[in-house]
Amino acid sequence: MAGATETGEGRKKVIIDTDPGIDDAMAIFVALRSPELEVLGLTTTFGNVHTALATRNALHLLEAVGRTDIPVVEGSHVTVKKATKLRIASFVHGSDGLGNQNFPAPASKPLDQSAAAFLVEQANLYPGQVTVVALGPLTNLALAVELDPSFPKKIGQIIILGGAYSVNGNVNPAAEANIFGDPDAADIVFTCGADILAVGLNVTHQVVLTDADREKLEQSDSKYARYLSKIMGIYFDYHKDAYFIKGVYLHDPTTLIAAVNPSLLTYTEGVVRVQTVGITRGLTVFDNTKKRYAEMTAWSGMPTVKVAVTVDAPAVVELMMQRLMTDD
Amino acid sequence: MAGATETGEGRKKVIIDTDPGIDDAMAIFVALRSPELEVLGLTTTFGNVHTALATRNALHLLEAVGRTDIPVVEGSHVTVKKATKLRIASFVHGSDGLGNQNFPAPASKPLDQSAAAFLVEQANLYPGQVTVVALGPLTNLALAVELDPSFPKKIGQIIILGGAYSVNGNVNPAAEANIFGDPDAADIVFTCGADILAVGLNVTHQVVLTDADREKLEQSDSKYARYLSKIMGIYFDYHKDAYFIKGVYLHDPTTLIAAVNPSLLTYTEGVVRVQTVGITRGLTVFDNTKKRYAEMTAWSGMPTVKVAVTVDAPAVVELMMQRLMTDD
Repeated sequence: MAGATETGEGRKKVIIDTDPGIDDAMAIFVALRSPELEVLGLTTTFGNVHTALATRNALHLLEAVGRTDIPVVEGSHVTVKKATKLRIASFVHGSDGLGNQNFPAPASKPLDQSAAAFLVEQANLYPGQVTVVALGPLTNLALAVELDPSFPKKIGQIIILGGAYSVNGNVNPAAEANIFGDPDAADIVFTCGADILAVGLNVTHQVVLTDADREKLEQSDSKYARYLSKIMGIYFDYHKDAYFIKGVYLHDPTTLIAAVNPSLLTYTEGVVRVQTVGITRGLTVFDNTKKRYAEMTAWSGMPTVKVAVTVDAPAVVELMMQRLMTDD
Repeated sequence: MAGATETGEGRKKVIIDTDPGIDDAMAIFVALRSPELEVLGLTTTFGNVHTALATRNALHLLEAVGRTDIPVVEGSHVTVKKATKLRIASFVHGSDGLGNQNFPAPASKPLDQSAAAFLVEQANLYPGQVTVVALGPLTNLALAVELDPSFPKKIGQIIILGGAYSVNGNVNPAAEANIFGDPDAADIVFTCGADILAVGLNVTHQVVLTDADREKLEQSDSKYARYLSKIMGIYFDYHKDAYFIKGVYLHDPTTLIAAVNPSLLTYTEGVVRVQTVGITRGLTVFDNTKKRYAEMTAWSGMPTVKVAVTVDAPAVVELMMQRLMTDD
């Protein structure tokens, strides 16, 4: 546990908002194994699983690798508009979210606080110093913005796995899953004025863990690699079936690694708005601000965000493998 | 008038659906000067101007170059959903649509028929042989589909200037002007099952008539070049102001030239749906059909269309200049 239990001096404080999820588990483990980061907590959301199961899985993952020192905080069970009919991607991650392994219930409990309240509290405790790595729908972050209008300026950075910029979505041709999960929340967050970096499918589809990488992971003795090797099968099966590829997209680990080593990505800057109705509900539209439009638009005068454009994919995969294939 | 009045033997029969418009005028003149094409008629629509003025301008343009043998047919004054509040781009083309030149009223009259009825009639007269080059909102074509459900299979091809594929729109970051003008009509046409080639801003923004090209046109003695030289100023001014470029995008001529010489463009194929509500109203979303989605989507099972991807821009500009700088 060397690096991980040292004081946070010089390390980037992160909160991971997550719906574990197989690639969430990978990202969380990379975070725990990265001396560059100090994980303040995991907040949970719906998406790959319902929120209650996300909380259970977050607690379980921390127990599985002996890191119950990190708090888990349960997030919203419904969208910002209180919708209870949620899209849950159990066909991607298994009905338990972790490869249908029937893991025992965790002994530990989440904090007695809402995720939004925890996000606001930590932003106030460490103004400008906390990075939120958001790996699911943006409901908790939107609620934090509603809870404390100064949250966008107090939070250090929000790194979002979300959107599909100039490429097709993964729920349908228009929408990426996390944004589709709560488009209203996403539009609130994208326009809240915080320092935001969005990592979309245009980037994460470049970062593939191949069958060969999987074999290497399976041969590793580290507890992280051993755990992930158990749960990854269904995720590989899904990609073969849906994308006809032998490998899996590293959505969540790539986004987490944007916090570990920002220089592995490049980005552009502009306004992102989210469509909240109709057949393209959940679509993210980025304005490159290269044109002076004759009329006012929904993008006019809104705060800009950073949107990732390129990624050093081999370096991301290598960094992930290196972190996961060694023990503390 | 050599080539143009010869029999149509071997020439592609085209109907140009148009809202002239400065670049419409360019496209119409290129059509008249192209021995590859036989222009069956001009149908009019709203967009750059209201439909009544589009009809007047179409008649005027044909009179200006002595081609009153070609019929003009007036199209719809309202959208397919009967909306009367239309977006008219007078700030791009002048309040008269032709550079504010106060041209005299034409002596000729449109046919006593609707554009939709004319489209259906011509498709029935020459099944599989008529190409519609659609340079404005797609209202008339949608009405033709409603008027005769067999129209999509009887029409030869529909080449559409419309949409913004993986790039920002020109009305706002989401929408291109022609699709924005009548999104419901566009969705009807894109999904009607006809042989469709869509040419979007991703392609037409590659084709620029520069200041140097403009000077060459201005030095030409051809009646086409002389006419266009008179009206182009406001179009150049608009591009300098809105795009910060010295030159103009050749939207309509590029689309027309896709009928003259299809080999100057490459395309991909997939389903296009149009968003009809909300902040991205008028957005075109192309499904590249590379993913097997888990759920049914609005794109599932719909007919595919061709969407232009690359263009030989220098060749398009050269072909246009060559056609416009010579007389009959």
